[in-house]
Parts: sequence; C-alpha cells; structure tokens
Amino acid sequence: MKKNLAILAFLGSISAFLTLGISGHDPRARVEVNLPDVLGYKTLKCDLHIHTVFSDGLVWPNIRSEEAWREGLDVISITDHIEYQPHKEDLPTAHNRSFEIAEPHGTALGVKVIRGSEITRKMPPGHLNAVFLNDVEALDTEHWRDAVKEADKQGAFIFWNHPGWTGQQPDGVARWYPEHTELVENGMLHGIEVVNTRSYYPEAHRWCIEKNLAMISNSDVHNPLNLDYHVHSGDHRPLTLVFAKEKTADAVKEALFARRTAVYSGNMLIGEERFLKAIFQESVHLINSALNITGSGSAFLQISNSSDIDYELVGGEDFAEISVPEKLVIQANKTVLLQVEANSDELSGSRNFAIPYIIENLMIAPETGMPVVFNVEVSFLPGG
Amino acid sequence: MKKNLAILAFLGSISAFLTLGISGHDPRARVEVNLPDVLGYKTLKCDLHIHTVFSDGLVWPNIRSEEAWREGLDVISITDHIEYQPHKEDLPTAHNRSFEIAEPHGTALGVKVIRGSEITRKMPPGHLNAVFLNDVEALDTEHWRDAVKEADKQGAFIFWNHPGWTGQQPDGVARWYPEHTELVENGMLHGIEVVNTRSYYPEAHRWCIEKNLAMISNSDVHNPLNLDYHVHSGDHRPLTLVFAKEKTADAVKEALFARRTAVYSGNMLIGEERFLKAIFQESVHLINSALNITGSGSAFLQISNSSDIDYELVGGEDFAEISVPEKLVIQANKTVLLQVEANSDELSGSRNFAIPYIIENLMIAPETGMPVVFNVEVSFLPGG
Amino acid sequence: MKKNLAILAFLGSISAFLTLGISGHDPRARVEVNLPDVLGYKTLKCDLHIHTVFSDGLVWPNIRSEEAWREGLDVISITDHIEYQPHKEDLPTAHNRSFEIAEPHGTALGVKVIRGSEITRKMPPGHLNAVFLNDVEALDTEHWRDAVKEADKQGAFIFWNHPGWTGQQPDGVARWYPEHTELVENGMLHGIEVVNTRSYYPEAHRWCIEKNLAMISNSDVHNPLNLDYHVHSGDHRPLTLVFAKEKTADAVKEALFARRTAVYSGNMLIGEERFLKAIFQESVHLINSALNITGSGSAFLQISNSSDIDYELVGGEDFAEISVPEKLVIQANKTVLLQVEANSDELSGSRNFAIPYIIENLMIAPETGMPVVFNVEVSFLPGG
Amino acid sequence: MKKNLAILAFLGSISAFLTLGISGHDPRARVEVNLPDVLGYKTLKCDLHIHTVFSDGLVWPNIRSEEAWREGLDVISITDHIEYQPHKEDLPTAHNRSFEIAEPHGTALGVKVIRGSEITRKMPPGHLNAVFLNDVEALDTEHWRDAVKEADKQGAFIFWNHPGWTGQQPDGVARWYPEHTELVENGMLHGIEVVNTRSYYPEAHRWCIEKNLAMISNSDVHNPLNLDYHVHSGDHRPLTLVFAKEKTADAVKEALFARRTAVYSGNMLIGEERFLKAIFQESVHLINSALNITGSGSAFLQISNSSDIDYELVGGEDFAEISVPEKLVIQANKTVLLQVEANSDELSGSRNFAIPYIIENLMIAPETGMPVVFNVEVSFLPGG
Repeated sequence: MKKNLAILAFLGSISAFLTLGISGHDPRARVEVNLPDVLGYKTLKCDLHIHTVFSDGLVWPNIRSEEAWREGLDVISITDHIEYQPHKEDLPTAHNRSFEIAEPHGTALGVKVIRGSEITRKMPPGHLNAVFLNDVEALDTEHWRDAVKEADKQGAFIFWNHPGWTGQQPDGVARWYPEHTELVENGMLHGIEVVNTRSYYPEAHRWCIEKNLAMISNSDVHNPLNLDYHVHSGDHRPLTLVFAKEKTADAVKEALFARRTAVYSGNMLIGEERFLKAIFQESVHLINSALNITGSGSAFLQISNSSDIDYELVGGEDFAEISVPEKLVIQANKTVLLQVEANSDELSGSRNFAIPYIIENLMIAPETGMPVVFNVEVSFLPGG
Repeated sequence: MKKNLAILAFLGSISAFLTLGISGHDPRARVEVNLPDVLGYKTLKCDLHIHTVFSDGLVWPNIRSEEAWREGLDVISITDHIEYQPHKEDLPTAHNRSFEIAEPHGTALGVKVIRGSEITRKMPPGHLNAVFLNDVEALDTEHWRDAVKEADKQGAFIFWNHPGWTGQQPDGVARWYPEHTELVENGMLHGIEVVNTRSYYPEAHRWCIEKNLAMISNSDVHNPLNLDYHVHSGDHRPLTLVFAKEKTADAVKEALFARRTAVYSGNMLIGEERFLKAIFQESVHLINSALNITGSGSAFLQISNSSDIDYELVGGEDFAEISVPEKLVIQANKTVLLQVEANSDELSGSRNFAIPYIIENLMIAPETGMPVVFNVEVSFLPGG
Repeated sequence: MKKNLAILAFLGSISAFLTLGISGHDPRARVEVNLPDVLGYKTLKCDLHIHTVFSDGLVWPNIRSEEAWREGLDVISITDHIEYQPHKEDLPTAHNRSFEIAEPHGTALGVKVIRGSEITRKMPPGHLNAVFLNDVEALDTEHWRDAVKEADKQGAFIFWNHPGWTGQQPDGVARWYPEHTELVENGMLHGIEVVNTRSYYPEAHRWCIEKNLAMISNSDVHNPLNLDYHVHSGDHRPLTLVFAKEKTADAVKEALFARRTAVYSGNMLIGEERFLKAIFQESVHLINSALNITGSGSAFLQISNSSDIDYELVGGEDFAEISVPEKLVIQANKTVLLQVEANSDELSGSRNFAIPYIIENLMIAPETGMPVVFNVEVSFLPGG
Repeated sequence: MKKNLAILAFLGSISAFLTLGISGHDPRARVEVNLPDVLGYKTLKCDLHIHTVFSDGLVWPNIRSEEAWREGLDVISITDHIEYQPHKEDLPTAHNRSFEIAEPHGTALGVKVIRGSEITRKMPPGHLNAVFLNDVEALDTEHWRDAVKEADKQGAFIFWNHPGWTGQQPDGVARWYPEHTELVENGMLHGIEVVNTRSYYPEAHRWCIEKNLAMISNSDVHNPLNLDYHVHSGDHRPLTLVFAKEKTADAVKEALFARRTAVYSGNMLIGEERFLKAIFQESVHLINSALNITGSGSAFLQISNSSDIDYELVGGEDFAEISVPEKLVIQANKTVLLQVEANSDELSGSRNFAIPYIIENLMIAPETGMPVVFNVEVSFLPGG
C-alpha cells in the first residue's frame, strides 16, 4: 500500500510520531454487541428505521452502512420518508437512491442493507415503515391505503412507527385506531415500534403481546449516529434483535414475519420470556454453586456475565438459614459476588436453596420483570 | 441481608427511567478547547478545510456547524471542491449552497461560518483553499490562475493544502514549484497547511518560517467528524489557532493576513515561539517555588496545567547540589510533581536554581522543541 | 536524576517504548475538584472520617495523604477507632501513630492532615468523631462521656457519625436520643454526618437545620479509596465543603465551628441556600441573554458550567409567548442549550422573561431543591 | 416545550437515588484478562512479587487478594522482604503473617495465594524471590546462601528479581555474576524477572532463552495497585502467564519448574514462539478469507481479536497483483479491516496469497517480533 512517507520520514523524534501518528488513533473498527445466539437461532442486531439526506436525514447513505458495521450491527434498513422531502430543492427526490448507495458499502463490510421506506401520513394511521421492498417509487401514492397495499404486494414487512410520538399524540400516549385494526385484519401490519429513539411505548408493548405482533426497536436516526448516542461510552442505539436461522436477508424476513424479535434499548431487553431467559442463561454463569459457610460467616457465589447488559436483580428474599442481598447488579462483561450469610452460628449439614430474583430490566410485559432462580448448595461448618 | 433503607426508600419503578430516559444520555453539549487567550488576543479555534455532500463529503452542511459547536470551535469554513463533484448526478452542482445551509445553524449556535472553497487542481499548484469569498461560483473557471485571481479579487485568504499529499506526491514529500513562487510574489498565497488530517509536513513548516506565510492546520474532514476522531476520548481534529482581536469574521481575516496563527494537532503545538511561550505561561503555574529539603532528601515542586495539552518536557539537567527528573509530562488539566533531590546531606543555606527543559511537543521549528526554565529556590536543612 | 537506562537503551524499536515506557502511564497527578470559591471564602474539600491499619482500615496512613492529594482534597483527618482494634495482635495499639505517619506526607504534598479519632460506642450516642485533637491517647477512657469531655477539653470539633447506620439502626432510620440533646446542650456536639459513604440521612439533614449544627459528609473509607470509588470515571468520595478564610488548619477549625459547610456527595450538593446559590452563580454563566426569534421558530440560550456538578433542572414553566424545556441538565464542565420556542408566529417586539427552575440536586432542605431564575430578553422578528 | 410523557410518567423523586444510590457505583467486580487457554493448558494470570505492610508495602495483606480478584488474576504470591522491615517499630516482624492474612480472603474469592518471600541482599546475587515456601521464618538467616538453601529445601521455586534495577545497577543494565552461575548449577535459580514494574530487561530475556530459565513478570507493587496502574483505563500490572494443567497450586508449581511461562506487560507478550503463536491463533480470526476485487478496486479482509492485546503488525509486503497495508493494528476485542487493493484493472481469475507480517509486540527474543502469515484467496473480477 502507498505509505504516508511524510509521517514515516519524521520518526527519530518519537514525540511527533506519538502525537501525529495514525495508528494509535485509527478509530475504524467494529465492536460487537455481546448478546448470545439462542435457541438455535442467530441473534442478529438490526436497525430498521434510518434516514439519510434523501429525506430529512443529514448524512450520505453509505455512512449508515459504515456506522452499522462499526457498532456491531448485522442488518439495517434505510427508510427515508416518501412524502417528506425537505432537501428536494437541492437534492431531487429519488426514493430508491439511498438504498442503492448504502447497499454496496454494506456488502463490502458484511452488513445486510434492506430496501425500505417510511410511509409518512397523519394519524391515523401515522407513520408506517415497510422493509424488504423491491421498488420504493411505487409507494409514492396519493392515498395511504394504496401505499400500504403496494408495499404488501411487494412482500414487505410493515410496522407502525413511534405510535405515541408527541408530534402526533401531544400527550405522548399511543392510541389504537380503527385503521390499525383494519391493517391487522388485512395482514398488512406485522409489528410495532415498542421503542423508537429513547422512547418506550408501554401501550405498544401490550398490543404486541395481545395482538401477536412483532416487537420492534429502532433508532430513527437523522444525525450522524454519534451525535445522538455516546457509542464510545457504553451507550448504543436501540436495536431490534431478530432471532434468525442464518444471517441472510431471507432468514431475517422469515424471522420478522414469525415474530421472533426482541427489543434492546439502553440497558433493557423487552420481549417474550423464552428469548429473554435464553439470553440470560447463555450469558450468565455461576462460577461456583456449592458454598461452605463457617459459623455465622458468609460465602460468595461468583456470577459471571459475558453480555453487554447489566442485569438488575431485585427482590432477593431471605431464608430461615441464610440471608442474601435484596438487590444485585450482575455487571456487563464482569463477574460479581452474591454474598450468602448464615443467619446463625448453630447451623450444620448441607442444604439446597433456590434463591429467587426478578430481573427488572428484562421486561416480559409492561412493568413486569423476568423471574430467575439461582440454585445453591450451602454446607454449614462449625464456626471459629 | 441488612439493607440500606435510607436509600431503598427512594425506590419505585425507576429501572425503565434509568435505561430509557433522555436526560442521562443527552450528548448535545459543547466542550471547550482549553487553550488560553494570549498577548491580548482571543485564541480562536478554527478549522478552515471541511467538506460536505456538496462535493465529496458525506454529511449535510449544517452538521458541520453542529460538530464545530460541540467540539469547542469558534470558526469554520466549508470548502467544498469546485472541480470534484462525485455526487452531482444525485445532487446538482451548486457551489454556494453548502455555506448557505451551514451558516444559519452556525449563527444560531455562535459559530462563525466562513464562505470558502477548494480550488482542486493537479500539482503544481495542487489544491488551494480560498476563504472569505463572496461568491464561489465565480471561481469555477477553466484555468487555475483565473480561479485564484477571482478569489484574490474577492479579497480571499488563500492557502496551499496538504503540500505533501501522497495523491500528488507519492513519496509524501512536499515540493515547492515555480508556480508557488509566482503566487507568493503576486500576493496570492498567504499560508500553507503544515498539518492536514493527521499528517505533518516539515517542509511546509520550514517554508512558512522562511517565506513568512501563515501556518495552517485543518481536518479536511469528509466523514461525520466522529468517525475520524475519538472526540469523546481526548482526541481532536487538527485546528488552526488564530490570535484575533475579537471573535468576528473581520478580526479572523485580519489575524490570518497578519499570520497570527499556530497549529494545534494531536498533542502538539507548532508556531512562533512568542505564541507558544505565552500559551505555556498562561496555562502552567508553579503552586510552590520555594522548597525545603532536609538532609539528602527531596521535595516536590507542584506544577499545575489548565490546558488540554500534556506538556512533554525532556532534557532536565542535574546541578552540583540537586538532581531533577530527566523527563516530565505536565499532564493536561492536572497538577504534577517535579521531584528535586539533594545530592548530598552536607548542604546548607538557600540557593536559586534555573532548571531548564525542552518541551518536545511545542515545536518552534522542524525538530526543534521550545525551551523553558523553572526558577526554584531551595533551602537545605540539616538532615535527620 | 538517575535514569532507567534499561528502557532508554531499548528505543529504536518504538513499540517497546510505547508499551513499557513510564511516561504515558504515570498515574501520579492531582485532579482538582472544580467547585468555586464563594462569598469571599476558600471552598476547601475535606474528608474528616478516614481509617487506616491502625484501627480497621486496610492501608498504611501515608496512603491517605497521597490519595487525598491526587483527588484534589485540601484537608483530611485520620480518625481511627479508639475502641475497635482488630489488628492489634499484629499491630499494637498506638492511637496517635496514624496521624504521625500521614502528616509528613501530606505536608510534602500540600494537604493538611488533622489529628482526629473516632469514639466508637454503642447507640446512644453511637460513633462520634473528634477532630483537631492534641493527643488521641487521652480519649481511651472507659466511659464515653469521659472521652467526649477530653476531646472537648482539647478543643476538638465533635460530630456524630452515620446516625442511621444499619449496624446500629437496623431499619436505617436515624433516631435522636436524650444523650444527643445532652451533648448539644453541653456544647459538645457540633455537627452530624448528613452523608456517610453513599448513604444520605434526611433526618440528620433536618436536625442540622433545626439545631444549627454543621452538615458533614465523609467517606469513612477503610479500603484503598479506589476500591470503593471509581475516581477515574467521574465518581468521587463524599466531601465536606468547608468555606474557610484561608487554607490553614486554624481557618478550617474556625469555619467548622461557624457551621460554614456543605455536603458534596455523588452529584448532589446539600447545604444552606446562600452557599449553594453562590456555587451555582460562580460556576454557571449565560453566554448570551438576548435572543432573536423569527416567526414561530426558536433560539438557544447558551449556558456554560465550569463546575464538576451536572445541575439537574426541573419544573421549567411555559409563558404565553414562549415555551421552554421542562427539564434541563447543565452538564459539568460543558456548555448546553436551553431552547426557547415562540408559541405563535404573530409575536413582535421585545419582552423580558424570568424563567424559573428548581435544581433538584442542590438540596436546601430534605426533598427541597434550590430555585433559580434565568432572565432572558427575547425579540420577536417577523417570520419567514 | 412538548414533553415526552411516556418517559416522564416514570418519574418520582429519583434524583437522590441517582446520585447517592449504591447500585450504579458499586465498583466491586472482577474483570477477566482476555487471553485464551492454549495447547491444552490453562493460561493462568499470576503476580509473584507483591508487598504489604509486613515489609515496606502500604496495604494490609487481604487487599492484595481483593485487588487480584478484581483484576482477573488467578494466582498471587505475597513476597515481603525478609531483611528490610521499615515498619517494624509499629508492626513487629512476623514473616509468615502476610500470607496468613491474605490467604483466606483469596480462597473466599477463588484466588490462589502462594506463600513466598523476597530474600533481599546486595548484588550479587541481588534480590531473589522464593515462592511455594512452607515457613518464611526459616529464611531469616545471616548469609544469603543459607536462605537460598533453606528455600530450596522447602521445595521453593526461586527467581532473580529486577536484575537491572538502578538501585543496584546504576546504569540500569543487568549483569550476570559468578554467584548466579553457582545458583543455576546448584539448581537453586529457576527463573528471572524479564519485566518488573514497567521495566523490561533485555539481558534477562536473553539469559532465560540461553540458560533455559523461566521468564517471569511481576508488579513488585508496594502501593495500593490502583495508585500505580490505571486499571480502569486499559492499563494493567505486569503478569506472568503460567500455562498450567489446571488451576491448582501444584499445577502452577509444576508449570513454573517446567518453564511454561510468558510475560504479559503493557501491550507486550514475551515468551517462546509456541506460546505466543497459540495465543495469537486462538484470539485472532479471519471473518472472511476469500475476497472479490472488481477492476482496480479493493476488498476488505475482516480480522477479529477476542484478546485484550492490540496486535501491532508491521512489514506488510506488496505482491505483483495486490497491495496491502504496511502496518496494521488488530485492536483488542474488536474487528478491523485489512484492505487489499488490486494493482491493476487487467487482472482476472483467482490467486492465493500468503501475506506476511511481523507482530512487533509479540517478542520471541530481544528486538525480535513474531512472524505471522494470513492466507487469502482473491478473485479478480472485470472492472466497472
């Protein structure tokens, strides 16, 4: 490769190299999202709601592929507004171009880019994303029902965006309209954004459970991603986790229609218990599960966590013989201690305990954390 | 386990707020560049070489104003290529538009946006930036001399970009051509980029000193800035420091033509000794300057640094009576210790020492650090 | 100074220098706590409750001076338990030694070390710290009243530690006993720890206000400080801010007895409004205070913060003409934007607004944030 | 301003919790050192040279076990000086106590604590560490040969500490004395510290290779570890990697005597090629190895790294058909891109390339990096 000789020539004086040199500062790298594959599926990290300069976004489309690669994403869909084109005096409307520009860069980096679009109408039905399209231009129709029908005709997966967006619901509360019933009954609404940007919509969460719709979580990013998320400080964009048979566009589509998704937003997972439990079990391990406690002392259960999630446990209950912490955070990518204390120095023998907790930030329904149990065998030794 | 009830009483269902809430994560803030005003001038932080989607850059122009505000810049110039328009099939050429879009956003945030352009020709003369233009379209000429003349006619400040760029000088070495002599003699070349991106051009540094041209340092950024610089981890884009009478466009222009500039790149300052010395003196302070040493012991000089630069001192020399560290880093925004050791336990009385160092990363000429002296009074007390 | 030639000889191969070199990794530096001096006083950062191996702490006493210097403290008191000496079989009891060892190291670094002790009795009266002692041994008495009298005789400042400590109050609620009334009436109790470690005692806060006692906040650290606080990640030990006439032991003592203190814990300040208001006003500045709004647009008030505190504002109220954010965090050491939106495009002329907020994390009484008002002049311009 | 009520609904009085709460700030956790097990052995992370208050260290012994657990260590040895007892007036000499205090805390946390000691004599033979002792007191002899013999009698593993320490070799150069030959010939010297603290001794490195001695790397820490190493910012103490059959004291001892060790210091690994190559191969993976290049374009080889080491590759050489970067850093715990460029647009067909690099920071001998080869298949497609 052609070398930057201006820099290499300068060596001898190390200081200049240190401060001007490229190597130490090259920020181009991918950081994986540490969430395990589960139940025989790949856990694909997806963002299906993204804008570019081709609607009201503020970056050229290939930047979206680059950001996705660096942040550990597997799949993105560029979903520029069809009806909202504020840049059109400078940049004439061309609904397929953002996909066409983003896709080759994504392919070079191994990121799947899906052709999509945002059907941008007043409430109801509000904004709908259609992904896995063949031709976005055909959705540029006068009536919203025609746009949805065209999307459906192209085989798209269609979901309702930010149902409680204050731009359409000033009180921030999502409301279900007859139009949404119509769409579901016609098989033209397959999911809802339970999280958009940093907003969580509990109503949407409940509807997904009740109406058997896919739970979706997206960034809806318009800025360069780093202006909205501190990706170098543990922050991340909201992601839809898609549990797919393989990392292909077809497999993602199959999984979406089969509603095998979960929401990953901030430090929270939202979804069906089977997926959340599997993620927890694959990423959390007891280093030891047999404890010896001497007298009225204590011993430590060591719990390791190979995921990026801080599991926030509450509700630990004491037993007659032992006490445990009421709260415990199993920190991301670390090992922590669960201290088990003997309540008396007159105990002896061995006992098994099933210590229950609720993981507050793994939500299996609105305001409902996921239960978990740690099984531990404690041997009580005569005290010193 | 015994609980800290004083704290637990505050609980509720806060987990969702913690993880989804906006406040804790809002990344929109400005972080100042900590470099002091000096010699009666404002030390303005400027980047005069920036691209947008209107040439080969990858962000919409207002993003450049937003990035500049957040990163503590005072002045930017958008300098899209006139002759290189790779997006033109999607985005028709319009040379003044990037300025027109970026400027209002900058004004709303207090960032001065200067109309500029990059005259993009083969070497010689290579690429030239003209800033403080009135109308970029007029520079879209067939011959480069006409473009430069037009810029000069509009009163622009003109500088030579990345003179050793490997795209034009495969060995990375900057070369001076008769065309550059012609431009200087005609008063149409006023500065050179000594630093572009992460490359330092020592030849350009020397030419600026010899030919009395302004030393310039710019990012030449095409990506969203955060993709190229770890701005949240102490990294920063290269900046031209402009020592201006006030923070106005006119004052910046006056200072540039008067060559009151310095280069701030990585952890390095490059420029005239008068400016570098003043920055050092305004930001570094001795907390104490009279030391008592007992016997053959030692005492500490405390040195504080209110700037963002780690001053890298080398060459500390020992005296007959005392020894000092050969190297010392006065860390940015911290206070450090310079240990003074007595060489004997038979010393008495007080002595003044002028302890010399070279600051390696304050370059007053190629491969030439800036000298500095610490004056210290040491009283030697009978040892214990 | 004697050089490490083993390292210098190795240069040539830069890599080894980068990885093994001392300079880049030297962690010995002081980082100031950025809180301004106010009302003509020095704002001294003090920790008056610290343990060492001479009671149940786990570091040698000089480490406490070193930690304090690095963390930006001005004053510490080593307060080992008199009555609790778990190490005494290895380390014979010697109540004055921890001060005698810590003090010279503090003096060499400019940190004031105050001789103190913890009178460690069952509740009531619980644990009491006495600082500014002459001889700790004299407090080693059978009855607690004798120990307190001796401390008082030595002129000590005496305060009640962690009044709701679960070790003595299993429900975590602080309780006032007749013994505390007795101490106050005898002039032998001058303050209370409103914060100890990471626990806040609202009852203690209220008592300090009602009974005119100094509000105290200490670490009570036993471990190396870094094992309990992430000092490199924005975390800090709780501090007592002492508003003293100068940085001397006498001035600190005078200020304590005059109750010129405040609590700095986590991101919270607790104290009298006069001190908290002054800290806010000295550290927060409006960059601009006259705004122009065009039509129904908006404009930004820029607010800078030179302190280490994120000021958490809530309760912003809208006016007939303008709307402002309900919440705003003025981030530490940054500049943020307060967006002012016109409620109509039919406004004209200029108006002054006094925009009120409550700063939730500046507590002037239990559950009572500090009010603040921003005065802004808005000119409404005809819209576009 | 329009509020996000979905979020605001969660509020309450949370501010105090956020700022004073324990959970978010609890720093007690273990962070593993990410270096893979290799060649059928466990890669145990060991520090065999550590001080406490029982010699000239500054922490109580159990802190050493706590630090080791948090930092991901598996094995430590407390090795207080026998002959240097600066605290003895406060803390009477008791050579076995530091082990006796540190061991139970280590056992509770799963860290193996080995009884050891530092035989602290003038050069020659300098300072020697003996680990796996039964009784340290027996080594408190007048003559150093007697101390070594006693250590040997107890079955200890004995190594030479910091052979170029400027306290004994003012020029920092390690020197071999007849006494060291004597020790080796008598089977009483089994290893040498190639790294101590942040100093690398190339002579020691060479002697280990020539004389078949174990390469050792230790912290020699006296302060709380965090005062010397920025463990929260990617810094770490030097470690001896011991390739043991299992994580037991006996297995560690067996591996040490069998010289299955390597040095991990800063970003550098030092040791036999078989161990370093295995660590590299287990932690670095090609995501793709078959590339398609269109015309004179380029394609990316994606290389992931699951270790904590930034592998610093240099010396990449171009081929007739393709160019590759001369330098590449495979960043720790990230995936990076190796760009392969076609040198011509007239290529066709497929070719295999074995791309060689030297990993500068994996040292298989003094000044000798480890070679590595990437095998890539490139298909050249007709250009566009």
